[in-house]
Amino acid sequence: MTDARPLAADLAPRILAGERRALARAVTLVESTRPDHRAEATALIEALRGHGRQALRIGLSGTPGVGKSTFIEAFGMALVEAGLSVAVLAVDPSSARSGGSILGDKTRMDRLSRAPRAFIRPSPSATHLGGVARRTREAVALCEAAGFDVVLIETVGVGQSETMVAEMCDLFVLLLAPAGGDELQGVKRGIMEMADLILVNKADGDLKPAATRTVADYAGALRLLRKRPQDPEGFPKALPVSAYTGDGLPEAWGQMQALARARKDSGWWDRRRAQQAAHWFEEEVRAGLLARLRTDPAIRAAMAGLAEDVAAGRTTPDAAAAEMLARLGQGG
Amino acid sequence: MTDARPLAADLAPRILAGERRALARAVTLVESTRPDHRAEATALIEALRGHGRQALRIGLSGTPGVGKSTFIEAFGMALVEAGLSVAVLAVDPSSARSGGSILGDKTRMDRLSRAPRAFIRPSPSATHLGGVARRTREAVALCEAAGFDVVLIETVGVGQSETMVAEMCDLFVLLLAPAGGDELQGVKRGIMEMADLILVNKADGDLKPAATRTVADYAGALRLLRKRPQDPEGFPKALPVSAYTGDGLPEAWGQMQALARARKDSGWWDRRRAQQAAHWFEEEVRAGLLARLRTDPAIRAAMAGLAEDVAAGRTTPDAAAAEMLARLGQGG
Repeated sequence: MTDARPLAADLAPRILAGERRALARAVTLVESTRPDHRAEATALIEALRGHGRQALRIGLSGTPGVGKSTFIEAFGMALVEAGLSVAVLAVDPSSARSGGSILGDKTRMDRLSRAPRAFIRPSPSATHLGGVARRTREAVALCEAAGFDVVLIETVGVGQSETMVAEMCDLFVLLLAPAGGDELQGVKRGIMEMADLILVNKADGDLKPAATRTVADYAGALRLLRKRPQDPEGFPKALPVSAYTGDGLPEAWGQMQALARARKDSGWWDRRRAQQAAHWFEEEVRAGLLARLRTDPAIRAAMAGLAEDVAAGRTTPDAAAAEMLARLGQGG
Repeated sequence: MTDARPLAADLAPRILAGERRALARAVTLVESTRPDHRAEATALIEALRGHGRQALRIGLSGTPGVGKSTFIEAFGMALVEAGLSVAVLAVDPSSARSGGSILGDKTRMDRLSRAPRAFIRPSPSATHLGGVARRTREAVALCEAAGFDVVLIETVGVGQSETMVAEMCDLFVLLLAPAGGDELQGVKRGIMEMADLILVNKADGDLKPAATRTVADYAGALRLLRKRPQDPEGFPKALPVSAYTGDGLPEAWGQMQALARARKDSGWWDRRRAQQAAHWFEEEVRAGLLARLRTDPAIRAAMAGLAEDVAAGRTTPDAAAAEMLARLGQGG
């Protein structure tokens, strides 16, 4: 397969050799929506299959203001200084609309972005969440093939993007700021249920007492959730950290490692990765099917004709849809 | 068509005659997911097409705590007392999970639920948002055919359900509670942009000053949004209301009527309804296409086989999806 795809054939061995420039080039490739690039990207991912390397994929969510960039800088540097390599990717489905992008401001991660064992990739501007999912997932696969020990996938606190990130990581970490007790309700139950670890940042200086209280509040809330059979006693857990002083970061990393080890030992890790791959296959089929409605000229024309009939009141949305689906059932 | 569908043939003329029992029966029919009921429902909606009646469809959103039930009771009674007929429908995509349902507690709308010119229908338990959309849209069409002057479509303050309701109404009203100035940011920009009218409830007693300030804050925020070419000067607008005392309700209704009239005069109303119908046709095609992946036995088997290959690492999600899509392209 790969010899038909010169770029994929060139990049694959270089990525496996850990060549940073090839990795950056490949991430750009998977971010492209051009059909020839898509074909090269699919061939590249296929060529990299079976390398047997596994990074610890950590999903990290937190709304703006919790100090996420500072946390990633401090946590990433701590890992790098411990001899590990770290890739940081970002998922921000809103960046297309807002014009901004998380991780866009690399100056916030000044040290980490210059560390030789780190790779930081800002969120590309997004047109739709499906596209973001595929690109991020493929970028994760590339970083894993390049031999990174840890891949951090950052997202903003928006329901759908968090679900998506949870489907491509091994651990999910929720970063929060210290808060008053009644603000607990601000975190949606669904996100609490996704979190393996809740880290309350800014546990330093004046905010330390509030952070300690917030940790206790969340620890209490987490105890009310159903225990996950795959996890050791005590998980999910809430811990205080300070990205500013570095306090709590070694403990947080220790907990992540303990959880990863337990999940590997129980076989849950491999099962979960297999489920995730199957999930993304199904998602891709769904996305591809819907894409045909927009891209196949004959289908587009039929859709437009029926839409006109519906708009003019000559038929109802449901009757027209039934007709269109009958046509599509006969081979489009 | 309709003679093949006895229920549709029986119900259609009775609904057009405004018979309340037939309407309730028909709403139950469109809420059913049984295939034979779906066919009857589609036939019924088709049989009712072209009656030429148009209700004013008002979308109403507001998070729990803003006094939505009390507002609907007071506003609905004011309309009924002015000689108008009012139907109230609810969209609550979360009701399936939470077990609760908005409008479920009819005692909160004690007077309105007993008013002969009112029809209140709680949200059915929902399995997925797509199903909710179709059922609500069809229920709206039924109420319109039954001759209601106003159809209120209530939703909770959740992004996706609000977008959905906005796609099936003529006016979108956002109900808020009085708040401190810095809470303004709690309302998402996307929802602000959808609103034609922001009503700040509880403008009575101790809360009146706060409500007045909140109205001013939102009026200022609304001025920053792009003016809509279809609307007269001054829209979108923020107004104080009190569901408790009734203050502001006639003004709110007056503004709704003024906006509806202007949109009808400019031709925008009809264009928008045509666009909405086309939108729902496209949505139904998309939903139907995806449903096949779950329901067609041959497709299900092929999907399951490929998912297994992906889970076992014999292929990648993308390569397997490309293969499945190629098969589907040849007629499933």
